[in-house]
Amino acid sequence: MQIEDVIKKITPLDAKAMKAAKERQDFLTKPKESLGILEELSIKVAGIQGSARPSIKNKVIITMAGDHGVAEEGVSAYPSEVTPQMVYNFLRGGAGINVLARHAGTRVVVVDMGVASDMNLKDSDGFLNKKIAHGTKNFTKGAAMTREEAIRSIEAGIEVVEEQIKKGMDIVGTGDMGIGNTTPSSAIAAVITGQRARKVTGRGTGIGEAAFENKVKVIKKALKLNNPNPKDAIDVLAKVGGFEIGGLVGVILAGAANRTPVVIDGFISGAAALIATEMAPQAKEYIIASHQSAEAGHRVTLEYMQLKPLLNLNLRLGEGTGAALGISLVEAGVKILNEMATFAEAGVSGAEK
Amino acid sequence: MQIEDVIKKITPLDAKAMKAAKERQDFLTKPKESLGILEELSIKVAGIQGSARPSIKNKVIITMAGDHGVAEEGVSAYPSEVTPQMVYNFLRGGAGINVLARHAGTRVVVVDMGVASDMNLKDSDGFLNKKIAHGTKNFTKGAAMTREEAIRSIEAGIEVVEEQIKKGMDIVGTGDMGIGNTTPSSAIAAVITGQRARKVTGRGTGIGEAAFENKVKVIKKALKLNNPNPKDAIDVLAKVGGFEIGGLVGVILAGAANRTPVVIDGFISGAAALIATEMAPQAKEYIIASHQSAEAGHRVTLEYMQLKPLLNLNLRLGEGTGAALGISLVEAGVKILNEMATFAEAGVSGAEK
Repeated sequence: MQIEDVIKKITPLDAKAMKAAKERQDFLTKPKESLGILEELSIKVAGIQGSARPSIKNKVIITMAGDHGVAEEGVSAYPSEVTPQMVYNFLRGGAGINVLARHAGTRVVVVDMGVASDMNLKDSDGFLNKKIAHGTKNFTKGAAMTREEAIRSIEAGIEVVEEQIKKGMDIVGTGDMGIGNTTPSSAIAAVITGQRARKVTGRGTGIGEAAFENKVKVIKKALKLNNPNPKDAIDVLAKVGGFEIGGLVGVILAGAANRTPVVIDGFISGAAALIATEMAPQAKEYIIASHQSAEAGHRVTLEYMQLKPLLNLNLRLGEGTGAALGISLVEAGVKILNEMATFAEAGVSGAEK
Repeated sequence: MQIEDVIKKITPLDAKAMKAAKERQDFLTKPKESLGILEELSIKVAGIQGSARPSIKNKVIITMAGDHGVAEEGVSAYPSEVTPQMVYNFLRGGAGINVLARHAGTRVVVVDMGVASDMNLKDSDGFLNKKIAHGTKNFTKGAAMTREEAIRSIEAGIEVVEEQIKKGMDIVGTGDMGIGNTTPSSAIAAVITGQRARKVTGRGTGIGEAAFENKVKVIKKALKLNNPNPKDAIDVLAKVGGFEIGGLVGVILAGAANRTPVVIDGFISGAAALIATEMAPQAKEYIIASHQSAEAGHRVTLEYMQLKPLLNLNLRLGEGTGAALGISLVEAGVKILNEMATFAEAGVSGAEK
């Protein structure tokens, strides 16, 4: 589906379903609102799915991988070869996201959006090849990708979601893998939130002070050279983004268009959400921020979108690890709504005053 | 086992196991410490269980119920009859704790520590009768219980843990049910932390402004009349505590003595932890605070014990609901330690600098 058509499909949450879910929460055997954010999540999911008794049974985390030309500027503690190595690790089940997705009862779909090397992998339930190119270009020397590639990366994300919706997916988490990808994420955050590069730049995988100063300089240089237009989110993605980030933009837009809660992971997913919500502000209502990452720019990013993170566990791995934990909390809220007894059912007395 | 013998069994965490767990975390395929608090939890559990590869397979939440004479002073929005009604709700599986315990794969053991009415229930896998008395006395008119009853309530909690340890329990969560029990919890918090009653008193199940002012007055009156000795935690429990709180003190002490992580729920469990850690400061290392409750005194309580809550979801239900979510996070951390591949196993390159 074309991006414009997906955006047109994004409509407000179902207020009637939310009202009915809230009423049911108030009849359950607990003081009103005493399960706090779990209750709010259940009401939000009711509005998203358009059902007073929403269902979460088919959970998927879409982890998108891509390489970054800017990695050659020394912005990461790890070499780019780690990106494909980690994709293989994902497919063998040995990575952090595999462990936490199993814990949360969630499938993982890994997507090659633009890994620099050839992966020689066939499409399967757990892997999809949507490679736009062999890594982005070094955006300190020109645009990371063409506008057409940016659009294709978003469309690829939309395709992945549409395939998963057909398979029954009723909640989606976002994840990323790409050595160097906090650098484009910081660049995107700087352009869209209007904050200075330094304020939205962090230590990524764990770089030292000198490498951090270099990273800030690299981002400033890229912004000056490419001059991305903050009013044109696709321009921002093309000039200083990444293929996995573009793919995640498509995942967020298509999730919202298909009335599916989108549980976003950390900073890289947050950068994708910035672009998605600039393109379709209504998509914001479909997004649930799983956690507050340890990465500096993430707080600014979430505040800009007025999203409150569920967890604050000092995570900074990415891959969708925070999203897996967040999905589990959303599911807990929905189970409260669906499985708890009402005061009448349980023969429990209500409040006196 | 006698309380003194249980306290003697509480020893420091196993530093060698913690070091080995930390080393393994650093070899796993992720940037060092990038899973933040999940990694810290796994290392803590290694130290608690005394094993570099700890195990969480048999999870139990012990939810203790008791009534409070002080409820007749109008400190709760609900009548005392709700305490036994909710116990029946627990046993039918319709309460919040049942839903979240199922979600976390955790058993629930409900204990009648001092419900005012006769429960007419036989002991079973999910229920134990350890009733000390038919509710505490109204502590605005004298001590809530005798010193001997306070000791017996702690010993009952110890017994429950010892039975569950025999059944294979390797992590324990605490929970409570007792109409009016934020009032004794606030009284305990005021005495032990030395804060003013108003600062550690909240809205409980949801009382209004006038009822809140009355609640503060009730607590002040009780503290003045009973004058509990802050240096003698059993005296505090006896004069202004509750039977379920005493039971939870025993659960915490016996959990620590049996090298079992104790995941505490909200404010009532926090008050029990205050008493337990006054009796045995070493027990603190075995306690994991699951969440920051919406109840006012809880923050003060956790800060006094220097415990950092894992979650902040505005919960104020009790029953062990926050503990269930916390146990799931602890288990996630332990799975990361046990199930992730190392760099060598996965053939992934390490950091360059």
